[in-house]
Parts: sequence; structure tokens; C-alpha cells
Amino acid sequence: MDFRCSLKKTVDDSYDIEIGRGLQESLVNDLAGGLVKVKKFAVVTDSTVEGLYARKIVSLIRERGLSTELFVIPEGEKSKTRAMKEFVEDSMLEKGFRRDCCVVAVGGGVVTDLAGFTAGTFGRGVPFVNYATTLLAAADASVGGKTAVDTPLATNLIGLFNQPKKVYIDIDCWKTLPERQLSSGLAETIKHACLGDAELFRFLEENTGKILAGDGPACEYIAAKNCEIKYKVVMQDEQESGLREILNLGHTVGRAIETVSDYTLLHGEAVAIGLTAQARLGQKLGFISPENVERIERLLEQAKLPTRIPEGIDREVLIKKLYTDKKVRDGKLRFVFEKEIGAMVQFGENNYGKQISEEEIGAVLREM
Amino acid sequence: MDFRCSLKKTVDDSYDIEIGRGLQESLVNDLAGGLVKVKKFAVVTDSTVEGLYARKIVSLIRERGLSTELFVIPEGEKSKTRAMKEFVEDSMLEKGFRRDCCVVAVGGGVVTDLAGFTAGTFGRGVPFVNYATTLLAAADASVGGKTAVDTPLATNLIGLFNQPKKVYIDIDCWKTLPERQLSSGLAETIKHACLGDAELFRFLEENTGKILAGDGPACEYIAAKNCEIKYKVVMQDEQESGLREILNLGHTVGRAIETVSDYTLLHGEAVAIGLTAQARLGQKLGFISPENVERIERLLEQAKLPTRIPEGIDREVLIKKLYTDKKVRDGKLRFVFEKEIGAMVQFGENNYGKQISEEEIGAVLREM
Repeated sequence: MDFRCSLKKTVDDSYDIEIGRGLQESLVNDLAGGLVKVKKFAVVTDSTVEGLYARKIVSLIRERGLSTELFVIPEGEKSKTRAMKEFVEDSMLEKGFRRDCCVVAVGGGVVTDLAGFTAGTFGRGVPFVNYATTLLAAADASVGGKTAVDTPLATNLIGLFNQPKKVYIDIDCWKTLPERQLSSGLAETIKHACLGDAELFRFLEENTGKILAGDGPACEYIAAKNCEIKYKVVMQDEQESGLREILNLGHTVGRAIETVSDYTLLHGEAVAIGLTAQARLGQKLGFISPENVERIERLLEQAKLPTRIPEGIDREVLIKKLYTDKKVRDGKLRFVFEKEIGAMVQFGENNYGKQISEEEIGAVLREM
Repeated sequence: MDFRCSLKKTVDDSYDIEIGRGLQESLVNDLAGGLVKVKKFAVVTDSTVEGLYARKIVSLIRERGLSTELFVIPEGEKSKTRAMKEFVEDSMLEKGFRRDCCVVAVGGGVVTDLAGFTAGTFGRGVPFVNYATTLLAAADASVGGKTAVDTPLATNLIGLFNQPKKVYIDIDCWKTLPERQLSSGLAETIKHACLGDAELFRFLEENTGKILAGDGPACEYIAAKNCEIKYKVVMQDEQESGLREILNLGHTVGRAIETVSDYTLLHGEAVAIGLTAQARLGQKLGFISPENVERIERLLEQAKLPTRIPEGIDREVLIKKLYTDKKVRDGKLRFVFEKEIGAMVQFGENNYGKQISEEEIGAVLREM
């Protein structure tokens, strides 16, 4: 006996990204104005952003007569764990939060990843908004709906696709970022330029100094460009079946080195090393000229990012770590490659990935 | 500056429920035949079902040349925790499972809830199928897509909506269920009859003995009826905005008493007490006649289910516990009510819930 559950439906996860300076008032106006249909807000932030922006946002929400509580996780990638998610959940439950609430993530990529994942499973899903305070969050976490935590065995492997109700990219917040963090964020921007926008690449070659100095228009320009490029890719492939794999540029090696460094390397720093490795491998395979590999490395250096594997990272441990990547299929490593600068090599319909042997990538990494 | 992410799309989560006897071959045929597009299967089960059915299924999958591993959690509601989900995730990662896998839940409601939730966040979502071995799983977990775990502060509050690729309801497995478990499953069936099917209610009044004795046609009939009734409700309201609340019949008190009993009461036993409480409260409010309340209590007793709060459960602790229910809105308790038997009271458009004071429900519980 068979019974059919027909569950075809149209869903609309559309949302706006507001890019500007000092968007706290705008956020609170939206929350008070019915952006979400609830009146209780869990503001999730980290120990650094707490004093800089999150407390202020909590005050502004309360001034509007709305109910809110602040939940603070320790700053850094090491907070992206299931245990920290559990801590936020339990704290929310203790404070009486149930299904009629909204999560407001205030911080960088770690906070938006963790808070977005937490919102996605709290009461089987409550709405959330992202107030992105870093360039990395603006470049990486604002578009695509990816949320996740790390486990001892792999990064970003436990999580879900969950779209925010709105994202705020507050350029003003970048001023309080340590330069190392701003550089780290530039790695994802450079990645986006490499994979889809030669013009952005040239803009970065000319303006990286200005961006690091906090120039307003230059920062707004790259924030918007990041959203535009990533959106173009993910809107065609939200479930990551094909095209979206190109966003993985620099990340196969990047994620592994980030873990092997025990997070002493920032995400963007690890990605910068990964972008270098991927470009060099691409050169060996004839996908990109030595001149363009050179340009990529020079731009990364201009952005004060590493292009060599630091002393103290064991190349062989790193190579082994590559195989725990969540993109590993049938036990084989896959890489995507730039076609020079601003486009990607396509290997077949919906296929931008190429299997690479341990020898091929190993040779590149041993030279770095 | 604003950027719009337009993410409107059509999704199809339709799936089949196969109801029959000895469906292991059917399951394995489907897995080998491409029901899901992966070739690696994580069979999740509990310590009781492991020896009865799960090992056999693992063997059958291997016989087809497919890759599979068995993951076993301790039997019982206490396994529905975030820690147990983490255990399954870590075990899967250790065995080399990444995103190209499918979770096969073999067991009752605890296993299907936990495994469905685990599948939903493993690699940001991998497919899963449910092989339901209990009447409770057949009645409750096969339709609706609800998956969740419990936390110390609330049951079923951390989870997500996640539809399986297929559900198998194997009536043969009910034969190995302890009678207490079979009775527990009947509580959800009686709930479905109360809220939507007077004919099923009459069938149960006449055939409960047969069902408890394992009569094939009677069991298949109620399995199908359960799916049909629940499907009618959830297909109209998958995100639980209105109508779906009627499935909460008996569960406001039920979930609380289940927790307060520290899970010495089975889920269905707790629901039976909750159904009694809700009917009695409905009688006081004039929604159901004393005769029909009597019929409900008699049917629950025929099914060997409790209709009184056991000795040792502190009524006042229970009343307080009600307020941690995930259905609490603005700090107020909500109940749904039968309109006699086979229909529900509607209080407004999309509104089947009524706010109830602590005094009203307290009076009923103190009398039970």
C-alpha cells in the first residue's frame, strides 16, 4: 500500500542587503517596523563586537519598547562549534525565548555563521538578520545562505542553508577592525575578482591602499561588488550542485591550512595561501599565464596577505588534511581553476571541478 | 546603497510512504535503484532495533555492492539530545562520510527524529529515508517533516523541518514491539481520530483488541489512516502557521508530563493523559459532551493507556512545566479543542488555539 505526500511549493527567501555607514538606526527602524513578525530579539555577538556595537544596538531596540537580550560568544573562529551553538540555545531558553523570536547577528563571519545556524534550528527555525561588522562577513557571509559550525574533523561541515531576512553591511565598523582582519576580508574580495570580475581585480590593484586606509567610497564599492559577484553565482545554483563550486577557489587548501594552523591563521590569510596554491597549480595545468599568477600574488601581498605556507606548518600533515574537505567526492580531491583572471575554467555541463592527484597538489605545496 | 537578493523558487519535497510487511527488500531495491543519487549509506538505529532489523538491512545493502555503516544510539527518548546528534555526526565523519551520503533511519520516533535532524545539518543537508518500525513512528513521524531533539529546558525545541525521500512503514515490525510500546503508538492514532476522523474513532472502538493482537489488515488500515489524516492537515500548513496547531491536541500537557516523569512515561502514555486533560477542559468550556469525553477515556483505556496522572508526579511542578512549551505565545498557554469527536473547534481565520489561564488547566489537572 502506497501513500503519496505531494509537497511541491513556491518559497520566497528574497532579502535586501543595505550597504552604508552607521546603520544601527536603520536596523532598529526595520525591527520596530515589522521586518519580522515577532517582538522578541536575541542579539548574538562576540566579546569584541559586544562593546563596540552590540550593546548600543540592544539599547536602541529597548528604546523602541521591544524585548531583547544579548548573547555573547568569545571572539574568534574557535567559537564556531556545536558546543557554542548549544550555549546560545540554552541561554536563549533560560531567558524565555521560544518560537516567537528573531535572532540578530551582530559581528563578523563567525557570529553570522553561528547565529544563522542557531536561528535555523531554534524552534525548528526562527527568522534572523545579519548586521555584518567586518569586510569578511560582507564579502562571504552576506550572500548564499550558508551557515555552519566546525567539528574537530572538518570545518563548516555541520550547518544548513538559511537565508536572513535582511543584511546590513556597515562600512563604519571596518574602522575598528585590526588591519590584519581587514586584510583577511580582502582575500575573499580578491577571490571574487579572480573568479568573476577582471575590472574589480584592476580596481583592487589600484585601490588596495585606499581600502586599507578606510576610504569610504572605495569600501562601499567593493562591498557592493562582493555581493553582486557572489549573488550572480549562487542565484543560479543555490543548492551547490554545479556552478557554485567556483566559490571554492582557494578554499580547498585554505580550509585545510586554517585547521592545521589551529586557527593561528585567519580565514582570509589561509584563503590567500590557498589562492596562491590554486593559481600555481592552474599555471602548471595551462589554465593561467605566469604573468597573471604573478599579478594575483602581488595583489595578495599589497593587501598584506601571506602567499607562502608559514614556517611550522607541516606540508605533509597539510596534504593529508586536504582529504577531509567536505568537497571530497568518492575520496578524490577536486579543484576549480581561474581561466586567467575574471573567469573560471569549465570542464563540462555544470562541472567546474577537476580531480587532482595528491602528487600534483603536493608538488605545488612543497614549493611554497 | 541597497542590493536585492531575489530568491523565489519552487521546491518539490514530495515523497512516497510504503505501507506493508517485511519491506527490507523494497528499501534496498530503492537504494540500489537510484532513489537517492549517492552510494554511501549511514544506517542509524537504536540498541533494540539494531539486532532485530538494522543489521539485516546493512547486510542487504552491502550485498548490492553499496557502501554502508551502522550507527547505534541507546534505545529510548533520552537519546533525543544534541549530544547524541553530535555522536552520530562524529562517528559518520570518522568513518569518512561527507556530503555524498544518505541517512537511513531504522527505528521508532526517536531514531527518525534524531536521524532526520542529523541528515538535515550534515554537510548542510544530505538526503534521508525513514524505515519506521513502530506504530508511533508510523503515526507521528512519517508525515510532516518535523525532526528535533530535546534539551534540558524543553522537548523538541531544537530541530528543523526536513522531508524524507521515502518512508517505509513495516507492519511486521510491530510484532516485536512490547505491548506497552504498541499502546503508546495507539495514543497518536486516537489523537488523529479525535481531531479529524469520527469513522476511524469508531473503527478503533471496535478493533483495538485486534490491533494489539497484531491483526494485519487492521494494522495496515490504521497506518494508512494516520498518514492520510496527518497529511491533510500538514499539506495545508507546512510551516505551522495555523491549522497544524490542531495536531497539538493532547500534547501541551503530554509533553510536559513526559518531561516531568523523567521519561518513565512513554510519549504515547503522556499524550493519553494529555488527551484526557484536553477533553475534560473542553467539556468545561462546552466544546464536547460528557458522553464523548467518556468515549475518549474508554478508548484510551481499551488501548491500555493511562488516563490519570500517575502517583509521584507533582501536579504543581507539572503546571509550571507547561509554560516551557514551545507553543507558548507571549507567555500565555494555548490549547486546541475537539468539537465533539472527529473535528476541531475553530476560533478565527487560521486560528485553532485558545488562551487558557493557569487556573482553568490547573483545576482539571488537580482532579486527575
